[in-house]
Amino acid sequence: MDHNPVQHETGWDVRQRIRRGEWTRPTQGMAPGYVQANLAILPRDLAADFQRFCALNPKPCPLLATSEPGDPSLPTLGRDIDIRTDIGTYRVWRDGVMVEEVHDIRDLWRDDLVAFLLGCSHSFEEALLADGLPLRHFEEGKPVPVYTTNVPTAPAGPFHGPLVVSMRPFRPADAIRAIQITSRFPSVHGAPVHIGKPEMIGIADLAKVDAGAAVTVAEEELPVFWACGVTPQAVVAATKPPFCITHAPGCMLVTDLLNSRLAVF
Amino acid sequence: MDHNPVQHETGWDVRQRIRRGEWTRPTQGMAPGYVQANLAILPRDLAADFQRFCALNPKPCPLLATSEPGDPSLPTLGRDIDIRTDIGTYRVWRDGVMVEEVHDIRDLWRDDLVAFLLGCSHSFEEALLADGLPLRHFEEGKPVPVYTTNVPTAPAGPFHGPLVVSMRPFRPADAIRAIQITSRFPSVHGAPVHIGKPEMIGIADLAKVDAGAAVTVAEEELPVFWACGVTPQAVVAATKPPFCITHAPGCMLVTDLLNSRLAVF
Repeated sequence: MDHNPVQHETGWDVRQRIRRGEWTRPTQGMAPGYVQANLAILPRDLAADFQRFCALNPKPCPLLATSEPGDPSLPTLGRDIDIRTDIGTYRVWRDGVMVEEVHDIRDLWRDDLVAFLLGCSHSFEEALLADGLPLRHFEEGKPVPVYTTNVPTAPAGPFHGPLVVSMRPFRPADAIRAIQITSRFPSVHGAPVHIGKPEMIGIADLAKVDAGAAVTVAEEELPVFWACGVTPQAVVAATKPPFCITHAPGCMLVTDLLNSRLAVF
Repeated sequence: MDHNPVQHETGWDVRQRIRRGEWTRPTQGMAPGYVQANLAILPRDLAADFQRFCALNPKPCPLLATSEPGDPSLPTLGRDIDIRTDIGTYRVWRDGVMVEEVHDIRDLWRDDLVAFLLGCSHSFEEALLADGLPLRHFEEGKPVPVYTTNVPTAPAGPFHGPLVVSMRPFRPADAIRAIQITSRFPSVHGAPVHIGKPEMIGIADLAKVDAGAAVTVAEEELPVFWACGVTPQAVVAATKPPFCITHAPGCMLVTDLLNSRLAVF
């Protein structure tokens, strides 16, 4: 038996550590089994447009929960969540430019802010690993490679911008299996959006990532592309809302929901 | 409304026409919505091995039903089926060689014969078309291209031989959708066995088919490969049982089962 207590942390345990300022780094692999979520916080006057943007773009922006304006709790995602303190590192954006990274946003919180929590690839990666499929970025100890595509998202109000994708290479039979598995998880990006032929979605060179790090793609492998939770940050950069807060890459909200409960069948 | 009576034929209607000798050609598109099945008839002393072969190779040989020895009925597949008369054209094999094609096997029937009925791609092609996915061999008015791979089936008793596949080209997003749709139909070959990279399964040139006809594969398409019901005929040719009867290519048993009832979710 492994008695490392971190192995047995729940989502609630991780949130308490983060709230106490003891963890500010990426959350991949923490509280195994628990759903992690991407964050976007916007003023109330943009909230309806952003909610519609998510509804129109469910693969990059699968909406798990939306807060009441000014209310930092998210009762459907977990007990006693305070979205102002429970993420390790936040990014503050003004007019589409990321101006600072902070570990607590209590002093930036306003009565008109609405928090949007979006599904995250950590959930489906856990399902892929549980099925015995190899994840190259894990094998190579890198963040997943991320690319900005030439595929536009469906706009809503001011919100527009390119679809951003993450890429995982698989041998063909494993690619088919990965499509099957991730199809079961529509609330965490779901099935891939593209397979093979990166040039068709505007990726000229897989070695040139827009975020994360490039990984090896072997001759007998196909690159498989999933819609990525970085898309909202690309949309914020393109849309330039006066004020926005997101999580820093990889620093997710760890919820009380179980990944397996997201499976639609 | 279309009042062409053939459009409204049921599986039972088609079987009566075939039994009366009025139809001896391929059954694709007949009795839309009804499950069609591949046939292999073997002597009882080989039946247990062949049944195990099917169990070991469920993708090429998804077993829908097995008859009692000597009994030409298949009550779980349809009312009043007589497997000796209800297929348009049969192939008779002796020692692994196809020796004749006939339209009725009543004079060849024996008390020790067992009929195996296997799921067929017509069912999943109907589901693909219903989803709006284009099937190139239909567009080009050809039989589906079929290739013998270098992938061995799992042997059982004397039965062995190569996996045979059919190929349908799709644009990447449609390929992902086709994987999702056919995954719902494991009893009719299910998900593809391979995607892209034909050389990995021993197909050097997609223009050189082993059965059916080559179709156009566009630059922005991936070839997608499904296990094919021709596999049992390749296995009969390799295994050389003293006696065997199969359907002729495309001339299926049309059953009373509904394709939609084969979907597992």
